[in-house]
Amino acid sequence: MLTEPKITIIGSGSWATALAKILLNNVDRIGWYFRNPESIELFQRYKHNPNYLRGVEFDIDRIEFFDDINQAFEQSDVLVLTIPSAFLNSTMSEVTVDISTKYIVSAIKGIIPEDNQIVGQYLNQKFKLPLERLGVIAGPCHAEEVALERLSYLTIACPDIRRARDFAIRLECPYIRTHVSDDIWGTEYASVLKNIIAIASGIVHGLRYGDNFQAVLIANAIQEIKRFVDKVHPITRDIKSSAYLGDLLVTAYSQFSRNRTFGTMIGKGYTTRTAQLEMHMVAEGYYATKSIHEINLEYKVNLPICEAVYNILYGGENPAAEIRRLTERLR
Amino acid sequence: MLTEPKITIIGSGSWATALAKILLNNVDRIGWYFRNPESIELFQRYKHNPNYLRGVEFDIDRIEFFDDINQAFEQSDVLVLTIPSAFLNSTMSEVTVDISTKYIVSAIKGIIPEDNQIVGQYLNQKFKLPLERLGVIAGPCHAEEVALERLSYLTIACPDIRRARDFAIRLECPYIRTHVSDDIWGTEYASVLKNIIAIASGIVHGLRYGDNFQAVLIANAIQEIKRFVDKVHPITRDIKSSAYLGDLLVTAYSQFSRNRTFGTMIGKGYTTRTAQLEMHMVAEGYYATKSIHEINLEYKVNLPICEAVYNILYGGENPAAEIRRLTERLR
Repeated sequence: MLTEPKITIIGSGSWATALAKILLNNVDRIGWYFRNPESIELFQRYKHNPNYLRGVEFDIDRIEFFDDINQAFEQSDVLVLTIPSAFLNSTMSEVTVDISTKYIVSAIKGIIPEDNQIVGQYLNQKFKLPLERLGVIAGPCHAEEVALERLSYLTIACPDIRRARDFAIRLECPYIRTHVSDDIWGTEYASVLKNIIAIASGIVHGLRYGDNFQAVLIANAIQEIKRFVDKVHPITRDIKSSAYLGDLLVTAYSQFSRNRTFGTMIGKGYTTRTAQLEMHMVAEGYYATKSIHEINLEYKVNLPICEAVYNILYGGENPAAEIRRLTERLR
Repeated sequence: MLTEPKITIIGSGSWATALAKILLNNVDRIGWYFRNPESIELFQRYKHNPNYLRGVEFDIDRIEFFDDINQAFEQSDVLVLTIPSAFLNSTMSEVTVDISTKYIVSAIKGIIPEDNQIVGQYLNQKFKLPLERLGVIAGPCHAEEVALERLSYLTIACPDIRRARDFAIRLECPYIRTHVSDDIWGTEYASVLKNIIAIASGIVHGLRYGDNFQAVLIANAIQEIKRFVDKVHPITRDIKSSAYLGDLLVTAYSQFSRNRTFGTMIGKGYTTRTAQLEMHMVAEGYYATKSIHEINLEYKVNLPICEAVYNILYGGENPAAEIRRLTERLR
């Protein structure tokens, strides 16, 4: 028999909603933190998340809502972080509870822009979370398809593989298969890099390159991702696994990826600012592009695609000219 | 200065037409064999291939048409084979000319069904063509995008790398980049396997699996391709290169791939026969599925995706049940 730790989701977006739906297949009750108390009220009235995946109905008697982040942490054993990386620091800086005895699972795909750190590093250094208590959930997994209960595979990474398994079991259901891994670094970095690649994929699409070139771009991209994660954390890993290559594919080939949409607008000639205003949001990959550029000043890995995106988004380079230069560097 | 060998294209489909367009950027004249003399007449009258890529206009004064296969071989130094693999044996059996002093470039992606051989093996064993005189052209390259002059990358493989380079130079143009390789075996087998994977991709699409699962399928597929080519011809190769992974991606993610379309119909419940009648053609991957199954009886490589397609197309297995079993074997 498994003991029943109290699992609480931190975040209110579509991925948070998908994970809540998945967990409630196996767990009697979950906690769920929303920053905005009004959203909780609406959720309780309508029995679905008022803003995301509205088609997914919940039994609200099985959800304990929190609008106080410290209460959420205090009363839970496992915290699933699913807020955009750009807001993690501001959210976590409200936390006064000792989190070092919790199990924190990151479903965030991004870098904390203030520190250029992936989530694991950040929680480890700022909050003394032991790495054995950090889990990472990796796709390939669009939340929208979870809502439709289409078969998806998740990888749970944790240096303590038993913890990874314990959590993975709670996600298994007819439409979710899970695998475990101990590669938190590779998994996190790969999922950050794939967002930058998705922007690149959008840019070349916006510039009217075709499927032939797109395939060359993605084949080169997975090699670029491998070079980077192998340098940052050199262990034996198969980059062709679902958690790395699969995650890249579902993002880069998706019409629905926000990073790709953002890139497409850039490729079509929108400025960064206009594209962001038009989308009413900032794509994760936008911050990741700058962070990876800065992190790579130390590692000096050959990252032609990420660098091209950086030069376009932050260096003021003309997208058409920059991508043309990139085409010379791909094989 | 390059000497100017006479290059002749054997075949009249869209890929043949795309290669003719590309070659005429660098070569003054090409030869072009059509089985059907009427097509030549129409081509000469309208200045385009009457059946494929009709939007591509040709300067017909720079094309020497042949409707006699032996004349075509006799009068040429380089032959570019671009006929469906299922028809190669019947076409080649008309050839009485000694081909062992020619340079034969295969742009065929398939297996000769009569012999379960890839093109190189077949020409080597039946026609005594030295392997150093065999070239292989690999994508990722939809002919349709060549017609639109969208940037594409081709890999030319030949055990004699100078020959590969010589031919590659003749393909380079503003919208074609080339690379060379000596891996004719891996390149040929990978391009055969990817057609089977495209059928699998279509089947799961037809069964309404989503993008999340599609990404898992393709990530597993490239591992399956690697296992097979590494077993059949064990050399050091990076399966993530454009010639292997890129080629897989452009086929499996394309709405226009005939193999994928065929698979989609199977997934939706059409019988093999009805799907073929409906498409007015047989997808290359259909034959490849059987051939690879038979070839693999010797090699015994773990090929769960190819085996699932075989069981569905040739073993009478129900697609939904067979794919459900497959999902248990993927990671």
